[in-house]
Amino acid sequence: MSTLLAKSITDRLSKVVLIDPHSHINPLSATASNLSDLLGYHYYTELAHSSGLAKEQIEQVGISPKEKVARLMTTMRPISNTVQWSWMVDLCQSLFGWDEPTIDLKNWERLYDLAESKCGSIGWEETVLDKSGVESIFLTNEFDDPLEGFDLKRYLPCLRTDDLVFHFAKPEVRKRLEACTKSSVTNLGGLKAAITNRFEHFQAKGVKACAISLPPSFTPLKISDESASQALVDILKQSVSASPNSIESLSRWIFWSLADHCNEYNLPFDLMIGVNRQVYPSGVYQGQDLYDSRVSLIQYAPLLNAFPKVTFPISVLASVTNQELVDYAWIFPNVVTNGHWWYSNTPSIIANDLRARLEAIPRTKQIGYYSDAYKIEFILPKFNMYRAILGRVLTQDFAIQRNWSEEDCVALGAEILRSNVERIFGP
Amino acid sequence: MSTLLAKSITDRLSKVVLIDPHSHINPLSATASNLSDLLGYHYYTELAHSSGLAKEQIEQVGISPKEKVARLMTTMRPISNTVQWSWMVDLCQSLFGWDEPTIDLKNWERLYDLAESKCGSIGWEETVLDKSGVESIFLTNEFDDPLEGFDLKRYLPCLRTDDLVFHFAKPEVRKRLEACTKSSVTNLGGLKAAITNRFEHFQAKGVKACAISLPPSFTPLKISDESASQALVDILKQSVSASPNSIESLSRWIFWSLADHCNEYNLPFDLMIGVNRQVYPSGVYQGQDLYDSRVSLIQYAPLLNAFPKVTFPISVLASVTNQELVDYAWIFPNVVTNGHWWYSNTPSIIANDLRARLEAIPRTKQIGYYSDAYKIEFILPKFNMYRAILGRVLTQDFAIQRNWSEEDCVALGAEILRSNVERIFGP
Amino acid sequence: MSTLLAKSITDRLSKVVLIDPHSHINPLSATASNLSDLLGYHYYTELAHSSGLAKEQIEQVGISPKEKVARLMTTMRPISNTVQWSWMVDLCQSLFGWDEPTIDLKNWERLYDLAESKCGSIGWEETVLDKSGVESIFLTNEFDDPLEGFDLKRYLPCLRTDDLVFHFAKPEVRKRLEACTKSSVTNLGGLKAAITNRFEHFQAKGVKACAISLPPSFTPLKISDESASQALVDILKQSVSASPNSIESLSRWIFWSLADHCNEYNLPFDLMIGVNRQVYPSGVYQGQDLYDSRVSLIQYAPLLNAFPKVTFPISVLASVTNQELVDYAWIFPNVVTNGHWWYSNTPSIIANDLRARLEAIPRTKQIGYYSDAYKIEFILPKFNMYRAILGRVLTQDFAIQRNWSEEDCVALGAEILRSNVERIFGP
Repeated sequence: MSTLLAKSITDRLSKVVLIDPHSHINPLSATASNLSDLLGYHYYTELAHSSGLAKEQIEQVGISPKEKVARLMTTMRPISNTVQWSWMVDLCQSLFGWDEPTIDLKNWERLYDLAESKCGSIGWEETVLDKSGVESIFLTNEFDDPLEGFDLKRYLPCLRTDDLVFHFAKPEVRKRLEACTKSSVTNLGGLKAAITNRFEHFQAKGVKACAISLPPSFTPLKISDESASQALVDILKQSVSASPNSIESLSRWIFWSLADHCNEYNLPFDLMIGVNRQVYPSGVYQGQDLYDSRVSLIQYAPLLNAFPKVTFPISVLASVTNQELVDYAWIFPNVVTNGHWWYSNTPSIIANDLRARLEAIPRTKQIGYYSDAYKIEFILPKFNMYRAILGRVLTQDFAIQRNWSEEDCVALGAEILRSNVERIFGP
Repeated sequence: MSTLLAKSITDRLSKVVLIDPHSHINPLSATASNLSDLLGYHYYTELAHSSGLAKEQIEQVGISPKEKVARLMTTMRPISNTVQWSWMVDLCQSLFGWDEPTIDLKNWERLYDLAESKCGSIGWEETVLDKSGVESIFLTNEFDDPLEGFDLKRYLPCLRTDDLVFHFAKPEVRKRLEACTKSSVTNLGGLKAAITNRFEHFQAKGVKACAISLPPSFTPLKISDESASQALVDILKQSVSASPNSIESLSRWIFWSLADHCNEYNLPFDLMIGVNRQVYPSGVYQGQDLYDSRVSLIQYAPLLNAFPKVTFPISVLASVTNQELVDYAWIFPNVVTNGHWWYSNTPSIIANDLRARLEAIPRTKQIGYYSDAYKIEFILPKFNMYRAILGRVLTQDFAIQRNWSEEDCVALGAEILRSNVERIFGP
Repeated sequence: MSTLLAKSITDRLSKVVLIDPHSHINPLSATASNLSDLLGYHYYTELAHSSGLAKEQIEQVGISPKEKVARLMTTMRPISNTVQWSWMVDLCQSLFGWDEPTIDLKNWERLYDLAESKCGSIGWEETVLDKSGVESIFLTNEFDDPLEGFDLKRYLPCLRTDDLVFHFAKPEVRKRLEACTKSSVTNLGGLKAAITNRFEHFQAKGVKACAISLPPSFTPLKISDESASQALVDILKQSVSASPNSIESLSRWIFWSLADHCNEYNLPFDLMIGVNRQVYPSGVYQGQDLYDSRVSLIQYAPLLNAFPKVTFPISVLASVTNQELVDYAWIFPNVVTNGHWWYSNTPSIIANDLRARLEAIPRTKQIGYYSDAYKIEFILPKFNMYRAILGRVLTQDFAIQRNWSEEDCVALGAEILRSNVERIFGP
């Protein structure tokens, strides 16, 4: 009975039209062209590599898409248990009409052809979005993205700021900033003006959020303009050879300035907390990052206190930080929980983290899920996974344990799936 | 079938008469006077504030109790999913006979009147305790509490020592200590005598435990009398401007002296580990504290080793510390687990933590639950929540997975709910 | 229905013949002689002590085995809820044919006699292994173990290296190394040669792995030969009074040298991460160790990157580290997960950790379980516990949630129970 109810709730939640509040979609190339574009997603290349396929095999320059798929398929049996693989199977069944229960060495070539034909069909992008029940999708845009050539109603810009905060000491980042702002950044005033310029540019294109991913060691603090000016002098002179102190100070100053701008431009500031970059530098592209789970949201208390008007949708990389996230969202009016990020985006971890959120944080302060996808085809299977978990949790924790009606369960689910996205990021 | 068995076990556990081993009840004003006293509990004010209600609205001086409730009720829909809110609904249904499934903007005024009439009825305190199946309740008493004017059989004193350990540098704390001990604290001997005086005072009133809440950074160590004397000189002269070293040294010395007294007076020492105070200083009253989950019980190893005869009932604030708690209680004879504290007092977290305890720690070393309540009306719904979880865990982990009889499950549940409280804290 | 399916899967997994990939079996005395040898396992003595039995009672020299059991049985009611105790009951029922549901003060003497007669019966070792479905068992051998006098097909040596890495400053360790290698260790070259000698010795006996347990503070780093030489001079002169820096440097150098040898000898290097020794020094034998759960696998990134050809089967002591373990095994080709160690070897923790592994790590990179046993009688009940959990997780997460067939579930279970052990450690 509980299984039936969970299925019913999940089915009803599947009818809620989605706004996907975080992705890496390139709106100029939103769909896959073939199976290689899908199996080339880092979730598959890194698992293939982890299972023994050499990086050189996977990333060899000049091989055909089909050859790449052929190589990756040799390690698909070892990863057949993973939820990541189950997304691929669901994707192929739901979007391509793949009619077999698995994808294996015997049948993948037929799938390859099927995928190529579907992906090349007229209106494929609309078809995918329609089958996926997706209305619009948040992007991840570099600060110098011109934000042109795509439908700004469907693809909603978000200003990603990792480069500004963590790579400003690199000359190429500063050059990009100067180029896109048509200004020269030779002092703190210039830097601030350049940042403002970017907020103006993004604002004009309907920006939804400012966003950044942060290493466990980062602790935001307000840095005086005087200290930041000195740090900037050092960095302009020595670039990445500047003193670690200068680099850290200017990182903090830029980060704080971004928060200032969020405050001024009335923009949520998405914080994605906890990633260490290039822990495994010999890994495949985008399969090199891991983390140190010893991080605390108390590092962000000065920021949360300083900007009471800025909403901070927070994602954490490791589940061990989820309880802190729950409790900071419970206490701080400006903290909301944001999806299930990356290494915490697997079913058993989502279920635990979701339970803890649903039972203790106001329902209005939870953004249920985002796809984090690079191709729109992945939105459907990822949301399918999430909705199935959400349906089970609502059934067990609310319908059964707290005697909620199915109606009320669906309303709660729909609120965190959709309504909160609209309210928190603006219509 | 498992649902029926869980319900049966829970029902039988509900008949176990309780001793509530930790609360903040004021025995001179143990019950609520009206709905405002209940909705004024920090769990509701902080969630209301988190949901957007201004602190100034909630804490405005001079508003009537009914006006306060009216304001809080405007944010009750956003928190209707929380378990905290479910306590309120259960409380009203179980104690006031509230006959609707929810409390909302349409019906709260009728509830307000009903609550006022019930709370004002003759013998309400006895009625609540009787309906709640509570025999006696541990208090949280400041060191200078006269412990007079209430029934010492029903309300059992516990000596709370946060002020002595962490705020001794404040002149007002020292004045309070001098006033209640009628002594002057001008040297270490005087301080020790004053502490002894407090243990004598509390002992005469049937004290059950010494108790303290501790920040994650605290690491108990034995400080020599010489160092402590120097620290005391600095503090007597400079108060809170004394050197951080002096303040830390004396904190540690006082803490260690409390443990010495617990040893001498044969008193359990409740440690509530992990809270950071005032992380969100603009929060509502009692809604400002959070934590850094990076804490380890290894910090307490010197203490646990130095006082083998003192029982330490330990509560941890974050679930991530629960496994350490389980394992320290498994190894150290003088460590017992104590309830599910504050931010870990929500169902999914209780269930995980409880499972890990029941399967690995001797059954005699687990104190199941305490209410932490400020008004006795909250004991019932909180214990109801706990007993339902306990019933489910006993059913799944013991009856089903380990073939225990219902009888044996109930016996285990009753032991951690009641018998252990009596044995550990004395009859 | 799901209960039936779980039972069916578990039953089928029970037919998979095991290679136990980690134990502390002494192959010259692999079985218990009587109940005292079983109840003398640290899991029982430490819980008995934790429940109040004095260490002096438990470890009194000269008491008879029966007297020891009599004393331990006085605290068996308090630990009757623990899973550790359930192993004992299962063991007695499954191996001795004990026909009562419990072991208590009234019936233990009969059990004592039964156990003594069974343990003394001809072919008991074969009987136990046969009933337990065990083909071979990995050992834990000190570096100077002669590895003689036992069946090297059944008992497979593993080179345990804690003493070399963490106790080399003790003169007795150096003497043992010199004695078994018939060499003198007076400089770094000599030390390296001695290590090589040990790998040669173990290699000749069919060694399966190099293994070590590591404290949370340990961070492997490559130390230059020059620094290590200086450290060695200091240690040879001052032993444990050498500078902490020298001791740490040489620890790291020896550890790195072991990894070098694993690389050269094509041997997996088992890392058991997270234990602090002697946290409770007054505890019973082997019941003194605990931990600080604040540890991260990022500490091991330099090692994992430096030795891509060495497989590192990693065990973590605290469940909080399990997600990092999952994610490092997901990304690093040379990391595999290894069993459920010690304080994480209880059902609720195994279930959580197992779920997270099965859903995200390639199935070929997971070693399901090891017994860690000191007597072969414990292999059966521990694996029984694990298989029951594995059966439930496969049923819920794969058969029900992902529509896997029973056949596929069993295949996945068998792979992590057996096939991976063979492939990873060699046939």
